[in-house]
Amino acid sequence: MYAPRDVRVEQRDDPSIQEPTDAVIRVAAACICGSDLWPYRGADTVKRPTPMGHEYVGVVEQVGDEVTNVQVGDFVVGSFFASDNTCEICRAGYQSRCVHKVPMGALGSQAERLRVPLADGTLVATSTEPTPQQVRGLLAASDVLGTGWFAAVAAEVGPGKTVAVVGDGAVGLLGVLAARQLGAERIIAMSRHADRQALARRFGATDIVEERGDDGVAKVKELTGGLGAHSVIEAVGTQESMMQAIRATRPGGHVGFVGVSHDVQLPGSELFFSAVHLHGGPAPVRRFLPELIQLIMENEIDPGAVFDLTLPLEDAAEGYRAMDERRATKVLLTMPQAD
Amino acid sequence: MYAPRDVRVEQRDDPSIQEPTDAVIRVAAACICGSDLWPYRGADTVKRPTPMGHEYVGVVEQVGDEVTNVQVGDFVVGSFFASDNTCEICRAGYQSRCVHKVPMGALGSQAERLRVPLADGTLVATSTEPTPQQVRGLLAASDVLGTGWFAAVAAEVGPGKTVAVVGDGAVGLLGVLAARQLGAERIIAMSRHADRQALARRFGATDIVEERGDDGVAKVKELTGGLGAHSVIEAVGTQESMMQAIRATRPGGHVGFVGVSHDVQLPGSELFFSAVHLHGGPAPVRRFLPELIQLIMENEIDPGAVFDLTLPLEDAAEGYRAMDERRATKVLLTMPQAD
Repeated sequence: MYAPRDVRVEQRDDPSIQEPTDAVIRVAAACICGSDLWPYRGADTVKRPTPMGHEYVGVVEQVGDEVTNVQVGDFVVGSFFASDNTCEICRAGYQSRCVHKVPMGALGSQAERLRVPLADGTLVATSTEPTPQQVRGLLAASDVLGTGWFAAVAAEVGPGKTVAVVGDGAVGLLGVLAARQLGAERIIAMSRHADRQALARRFGATDIVEERGDDGVAKVKELTGGLGAHSVIEAVGTQESMMQAIRATRPGGHVGFVGVSHDVQLPGSELFFSAVHLHGGPAPVRRFLPELIQLIMENEIDPGAVFDLTLPLEDAAEGYRAMDERRATKVLLTMPQAD
Repeated sequence: MYAPRDVRVEQRDDPSIQEPTDAVIRVAAACICGSDLWPYRGADTVKRPTPMGHEYVGVVEQVGDEVTNVQVGDFVVGSFFASDNTCEICRAGYQSRCVHKVPMGALGSQAERLRVPLADGTLVATSTEPTPQQVRGLLAASDVLGTGWFAAVAAEVGPGKTVAVVGDGAVGLLGVLAARQLGAERIIAMSRHADRQALARRFGATDIVEERGDDGVAKVKELTGGLGAHSVIEAVGTQESMMQAIRATRPGGHVGFVGVSHDVQLPGSELFFSAVHLHGGPAPVRRFLPELIQLIMENEIDPGAVFDLTLPLEDAAEGYRAMDERRATKVLLTMPQAD
């Protein structure tokens, strides 16, 4: 990205091993994230031409001398923070806050090759070669599925519970899928778009609420005996969506919030008297990768269904435009044949 | 309370059974709460002479026709919300948000007799007659101990964990006691008052941090290998104390906040990236009463040690002054001999 609305695909030097804990992978597929639209729209500054992308799957091409968990030829999945997976914070399941974390966005996975720091802690290999459909699912696991899954876990979704999902982007939709997998009894998807409602139902939503804000809260209460949902997944990150999530949760219930906060201020008094649990943040996707990879490789789930536009890497600029103009929910970028 | 700084003790009609689910108790001891100081200081308006007090222990004198769990002559403990203890919210452990809750403050426990609505759900009887020291402990259980205990549970205190406590009032000090009982390995009390530090140590604090705000956070991090505490109890309710609690907690750790929020606005972005769990609100004291009563009646804990001034009910006005002027942490009011 050279500047807002100026995305170019150009030839760069191949990345190489810089630390003995690095790996270099040939990217099999990458994608464009909703968060990539912030600099694209000028909300984040772009000072110099910047590599883009933090979601990736691919095949290991080189490993540093200290890498032992993955080998050349392995098909691997990583996530948006490289993490050692051994520090106290990682062992507690918060790899996105690893004391040695490296944000992958700075390295740029929308490319043919990618250097992955802390490869032993970051990458998880599949046991067999994935099919093309499984590759799409694994790519979703790299961020949007892992994030939706974390939101559901943070919201303490479980059997017998009613779950409401605020946000019908890729993360919210995959939060529905996660809630279903985690055994929720009832899943209320909040969406006013017919195509996203359809995908929500395919992923397991039992109810659709089209209303937003306080009207949406009232609908959720109406569906839950006046009490509110046990668990609410927040996947937007605005003031309205956060308050909608908190207000739609019953006292003692749980809000899992993963929408990156934008100008949000939570009123302490309302939060206090709501008596909800609040947990969220940048998803520790690495915690869930082994389980998610297994579900995908056993064809138990098909999270790749969130990709509604597939383009070759060389057309990345069109992918950004399509997401910016809301013509696509989530764009998958395919790579040229191996050179 | 007639008006700010105008507290009078006067003869009123005895309360009587109004609903078949009511009980009337003869109050054995009552106390003045930090929250009673808001109207006293003019922060809450006082429109007309208002009965005061929401903490109480006593002996049942009358019961309505539908009351079956407590009997005339029982020594009982209640808390600041009457609750049915049977609705879905109560059964989930959030009796302070019971769908039929009645705030006890409106009834006024700083009195010789008190009507208790929803007596079956609200009151818990002791199995034997408490000693005078146990009465003080049970009175603490009615609010400040129950609240500190909830904060510790909300902060997921447990064996092997390091706990920090923000606030050295009665609730914070009893949060220390709760953390000790719940098996915390290390308990950092944040206090700059020698007498409160001493009580914190008596209740189980292993470390004292005198610094506040960001300096206090830095001290807690220094004591925890740079990571922050696993669990932080917040027992103040100001912007500074909430941010101090959030910042002193490690990623993935838990903040239990019970200080009633005053002009607090939590910045969404910082909360998001902190990756902490946040839970609190008006403590569901009723959830913990059976366990707390047992600990007190077996002399396992002595939470009554927080009362540092004891006055007869007729001197209630002096009790308010002493707390307002910080000459007392917590005032216990004794009742005249039975008439």
